[in-house]
Amino acid sequence: MTLDHGDPGDAPSTPPPLTTVENPRRPTPAEEARTVAAATNTATLASLTGAGDPWASMITYGLLDGQPVLCVSRMAEHGRNLLTDPRASLAIVSPDAPADPLAGSRVTLAGIVETPTGDEAAAARAAHLAAVPSAKYYIDFSDFSLWVLRVHRVRWVGGYGRMDSATAEDYAAAAPDPIVPNAQRAVTHLNDDHADALLDMVQAFGGYPDATAASCERADRYGLDLRVTTPRGIAVTRVGYASPLHSASELRSATVELTHRAREINAR
Amino acid sequence: MTLDHGDPGDAPSTPPPLTTVENPRRPTPAEEARTVAAATNTATLASLTGAGDPWASMITYGLLDGQPVLCVSRMAEHGRNLLTDPRASLAIVSPDAPADPLAGSRVTLAGIVETPTGDEAAAARAAHLAAVPSAKYYIDFSDFSLWVLRVHRVRWVGGYGRMDSATAEDYAAAAPDPIVPNAQRAVTHLNDDHADALLDMVQAFGGYPDATAASCERADRYGLDLRVTTPRGIAVTRVGYASPLHSASELRSATVELTHRAREINAR
Repeated sequence: MTLDHGDPGDAPSTPPPLTTVENPRRPTPAEEARTVAAATNTATLASLTGAGDPWASMITYGLLDGQPVLCVSRMAEHGRNLLTDPRASLAIVSPDAPADPLAGSRVTLAGIVETPTGDEAAAARAAHLAAVPSAKYYIDFSDFSLWVLRVHRVRWVGGYGRMDSATAEDYAAAAPDPIVPNAQRAVTHLNDDHADALLDMVQAFGGYPDATAASCERADRYGLDLRVTTPRGIAVTRVGYASPLHSASELRSATVELTHRAREINAR
Repeated sequence: MTLDHGDPGDAPSTPPPLTTVENPRRPTPAEEARTVAAATNTATLASLTGAGDPWASMITYGLLDGQPVLCVSRMAEHGRNLLTDPRASLAIVSPDAPADPLAGSRVTLAGIVETPTGDEAAAARAAHLAAVPSAKYYIDFSDFSLWVLRVHRVRWVGGYGRMDSATAEDYAAAAPDPIVPNAQRAVTHLNDDHADALLDMVQAFGGYPDATAASCERADRYGLDLRVTTPRGIAVTRVGYASPLHSASELRSATVELTHRAREINAR
């Protein structure tokens, strides 16, 4: 199925790259979804009332291998809903929201809630308390129940035009990105003090040898998202590190290495 | 139905007031709900999939007499859901979230979405654009639809132990509080520089003549929520202005007046 926005045709076109974008690897939708889920401890639960109507309510959660662990009271409507019908969905919005909220990252997880038992009950309790320290005041009240959302469906939206689904298996197997939530200062530093290095990178590796300016929009474990200005218009592209990073502390050396290699190539 | 938390009995008890709390009027649940709804432009929509499963997703909204106006694409799952089944719920979380998210204010609105027609269509479009300026880039795309949520149910939660439902009629008739979203600096100033005045107020009007300290937790159009320290323990109470306020600019004179009256009474 091909759907488009019925664009009236006056949107500016994006100039394509002129050379191959080297190493364009980026986080998968499953990795993006895990990263959003790991970035906060509040979400909105969609549950079903006794009449089958949808009911949206704020909740807190922890994560057990990416599965949300809820702790809700049956005195609350959503708690009664889950007891009656285990079908549930969680919308999680990344807390680093941009000024335009639809440009930000969010994820919908959907599935069935289950009461954890045995070893998983203890692990779920610990996961919830680790994410929501104030739960220690009520987690043992008799009206509160722990629920684990068995995630069957995953829909990630990374902003305008960036969205995809992930399978439950890919979501379960993925790891949150260790760089995305910790790179904001480094990204600001790159833009403020090293715009020339970013320009060298997009000219050498990003497919835009005609770029006249570049700024970094995000850093993740695989590379940088860059906005490129060219005489042909504005585009976004990708520059990948030599190898994936494991912590934000590796970002500096990875970008220095990219800059050196780019300048060697651009000097030829 | 009486439900309690199965409290194991070791929670500290709250000392009751020793004298009458004068003028304890506070915003109604309907007013609280309208205040939360007016405080932001993003919410989470709970809609129903074709299979009747709940689906939670972030959306933006404007308000038309308190009714949320959505603008969603049928290319998105929630847009298709609303076309198939108009039952919908919105969870809105007040953006001034405290460190403990469950201590913050939020509201659930639930009802049926309808496509506005005639004059209401133009008003709904204007209401959405006023709240979500970036919608101008897509509101006229052919895959986007405007929906007005006809609010049938309202559930407000103001934090631990502060929650209530409002009727659809009360919600529709209520006005958002003009003080709550604009009083944070004034509240900080009261606590930092006028703790003695707050103490005089709770001794004279708040029912705690034995108070030894007081701090302001929130200001609304009717008065102040105050936390009181006494030799008997810690309590929360209420001090109301002589008459309701219409803007945050009136807060200073209202609290000065309260202080003067309190000091006259306490000097007797």
